[in-house]
Amino acid sequence: MAKDALLRYDFNGVFTDRIGEEGIKIEDLEELAPRLKTAHERVNLLRSEGKIGFFDLPYDDELVAQVEILAADVVRKFDHFVVIGIGGSALGNIALHSALNHPYYNELPRKERGKRPTMHFPDNIDPDRLAALLDVIDLKKTVFNFISKSGDTAEGMATFLWVRQLLIKKLGAKKARGHFIATTDTERGSLREIALKEGYPMLPIPANVGGRFSVFTAVGLLSAAVSGIDIRALLHGAALANRSFAPSDYRKNPALAGAGIHYLLHTRRGKNIQIMMSYSHRLKDVADWFRQLWAESLGKQKDRQGRDVFVGQTPCKSVGVTDQHSQMQLYMEGPFDKVITLLTVDEFENELKIPKAFPSVDSAGYLGGHTINELFHAEQAASELALAQKGRPVCAIRLPAVTPETVGALLMMLEAQTAYAGELYDINAFDQPGVELGKHFAYGILGRTGFEDKAREFNKAPKPDKSRIICA
Amino acid sequence: MAKDALLRYDFNGVFTDRIGEEGIKIEDLEELAPRLKTAHERVNLLRSEGKIGFFDLPYDDELVAQVEILAADVVRKFDHFVVIGIGGSALGNIALHSALNHPYYNELPRKERGKRPTMHFPDNIDPDRLAALLDVIDLKKTVFNFISKSGDTAEGMATFLWVRQLLIKKLGAKKARGHFIATTDTERGSLREIALKEGYPMLPIPANVGGRFSVFTAVGLLSAAVSGIDIRALLHGAALANRSFAPSDYRKNPALAGAGIHYLLHTRRGKNIQIMMSYSHRLKDVADWFRQLWAESLGKQKDRQGRDVFVGQTPCKSVGVTDQHSQMQLYMEGPFDKVITLLTVDEFENELKIPKAFPSVDSAGYLGGHTINELFHAEQAASELALAQKGRPVCAIRLPAVTPETVGALLMMLEAQTAYAGELYDINAFDQPGVELGKHFAYGILGRTGFEDKAREFNKAPKPDKSRIICA
Repeated sequence: MAKDALLRYDFNGVFTDRIGEEGIKIEDLEELAPRLKTAHERVNLLRSEGKIGFFDLPYDDELVAQVEILAADVVRKFDHFVVIGIGGSALGNIALHSALNHPYYNELPRKERGKRPTMHFPDNIDPDRLAALLDVIDLKKTVFNFISKSGDTAEGMATFLWVRQLLIKKLGAKKARGHFIATTDTERGSLREIALKEGYPMLPIPANVGGRFSVFTAVGLLSAAVSGIDIRALLHGAALANRSFAPSDYRKNPALAGAGIHYLLHTRRGKNIQIMMSYSHRLKDVADWFRQLWAESLGKQKDRQGRDVFVGQTPCKSVGVTDQHSQMQLYMEGPFDKVITLLTVDEFENELKIPKAFPSVDSAGYLGGHTINELFHAEQAASELALAQKGRPVCAIRLPAVTPETVGALLMMLEAQTAYAGELYDINAFDQPGVELGKHFAYGILGRTGFEDKAREFNKAPKPDKSRIICA
Repeated sequence: MAKDALLRYDFNGVFTDRIGEEGIKIEDLEELAPRLKTAHERVNLLRSEGKIGFFDLPYDDELVAQVEILAADVVRKFDHFVVIGIGGSALGNIALHSALNHPYYNELPRKERGKRPTMHFPDNIDPDRLAALLDVIDLKKTVFNFISKSGDTAEGMATFLWVRQLLIKKLGAKKARGHFIATTDTERGSLREIALKEGYPMLPIPANVGGRFSVFTAVGLLSAAVSGIDIRALLHGAALANRSFAPSDYRKNPALAGAGIHYLLHTRRGKNIQIMMSYSHRLKDVADWFRQLWAESLGKQKDRQGRDVFVGQTPCKSVGVTDQHSQMQLYMEGPFDKVITLLTVDEFENELKIPKAFPSVDSAGYLGGHTINELFHAEQAASELALAQKGRPVCAIRLPAVTPETVGALLMMLEAQTAYAGELYDINAFDQPGVELGKHFAYGILGRTGFEDKAREFNKAPKPDKSRIICA
């Protein structure tokens, strides 16, 4: 099985017999086993009751066919593809794009991209960045995929309104309509309302799938298919990963083991930080996607009984070998407050030879005859051993290669791990009540009806004390 | 003064009278004042003794002239500029490029870039990414700026040897020599040795400036000048910031106040995480540069007396408004283990109007008539107030706009803050002993002479226990 595995979750680096007292013991896990079994049951129940839909996404052949047809149409008609979406409506798209397309995709000549559109995921409303986007796309040849489950997200709506007006000015209202695709809830919401009114093509987001679990819905699939990613292989990988979640025995279920080990490292060993360090440049944005998944799902004030718990590990993004020259000093010598999740890759597509040259120069001579691949893997293995010797817990998720199948499996496994972890913390991993307060103040400031009290509260907030502002 | 300030460091959001018991009291700072005074003195002493050189970098007119001449030559001769460098030899370059050049610089038509070269900072040796770089540059028209103080960095040396061979194959040994510029120590080191042998143009890195403090040396200046950044204005901003470090009274010295406040939040209030959240897409990579500066300088096992202290706040990168849809749930409701440093910008270059449309759609109607700028700033202000109400400490570094002057001031201020913080922790902020172990294992694995014992140790390390690897 290991031979054909899409990923191997390697926990060797977290146990006391390898790293000393900062690790966990097998007995700790054994003690947690009944709770892991219960967590597994509860997640299965949520799934079978239809309350969480993400496990069931890899099997929707009809959707795949619909996405492929629309994608082919987009490739025929357009030179640029822009996702209007933020957070869960962009991070999965970006992760797939970085992982599975050419590392300099947009800079390639059009032909070498298979005449596919350039891809843009602004994922922000910084006015200078949005304005600059217009310098590198031709609006007449651009399609905008507005992704929002409800349409209620201010950033998406504002960007849409702005760009729609530009298109109308350029092409007239009728033609402008042909430049939008709406990915949204099929039953309700303001994006659905607008899309119906305007006659935009629509792709569905299932009601029981939240943004951070939506990468295998049309949210992630359309941009992937447009840019040439094999979405069937991606979903196949996710489906294969699903099989590995069947056992309720954590020793056979990688996502369940991952949830248990992180829970123990966090709650019993004080690792309030989880570094996701990708030893593959392609996988670096998986870490950003994971940051949302882990932080927004598990960062909660209340448990299911309504008690204040203020839980949540802080996920951080890191890249190997790059961050050996930035963060590794802290990881090796700083406080014992973190666990590192490595993403590693056995085989790269390219092998780059280091020629023998300058044999008399000490720092050049030993490299000649090796490959850059060997150097990369040597540094990774060296870091793993050094971290273990320094008593720092490391989990490693090892992929044989970066392919649509392995990436599909990786993302699905991390989603399942997050769901199981939510049960261990006994919190609701599928809501995000903590962002409401900020949203409501913003609505108040902008004068949205119904938020007048928030506007008043904002205006009454204490003004800055100038003695506490120091200038340079 | 505030009116003309290049930055305003706003500490309103860290005090108990605003955020409650998770904040610090003015009295805490007053109590720390003598130690802040001492820290200020010690840093001044290190500077006057010539042990740390970064404060003195903005005044080297000769270097600026030399860089400008070389940059003009590069722009005339080449279409592509690649930095071979990692960590401190890349992060400052990337931060300046993102902040001060067009957000889609490389994708612009050459003319709209002022016929300047495309800019590449691989900052990694991932074989697939390096190989892919060759698809978007024409080697014949590419210059490689190999940046390394010693030349000893394996990643830089390996990339250099690989690309040099490619150039020799393509152009012959003689012509290939014209495609390198070495930025390195002028007195010693293997890069200096190679550059002299090969006849590469050389730019200096002062002996008393470490990688993470080197952005204002030729390390950061050449790529900046090549891409059209006004390096004189950048250095002017840094020089102006320097003036604000003269007072030993923390109430008048922003970097000293910043050091003291972060030190207190970390050591007295348990904030072992510092989020740098940039409410400006341009400044997002300043956070990556800061991650190295803060982590590598302050993440230390030993204090100056050689005692085990295992200190160091973990810096994380975050982007506003993007991460409101990813991390904000955790920041609002999770553990009280973090302080957020906001980077904010008063004025953007562009103002984007949101037209009135779909007035009957609730989530669209209220936006019409506003600008995207207003929305962006409303969300920022709303988040600040919500975080304060939730008892979360926030510092804000506010720039009037993103310009070479303000960015120069910002980076210099953060460097000074880091130096002062090192004194408060009583650690050496200018070394990085914790990365040696991993480097030595890598040398051992690759067979470098002198590291045979590390090779043996590596080979003797316990093999993975297969029962602790779970597949999907």
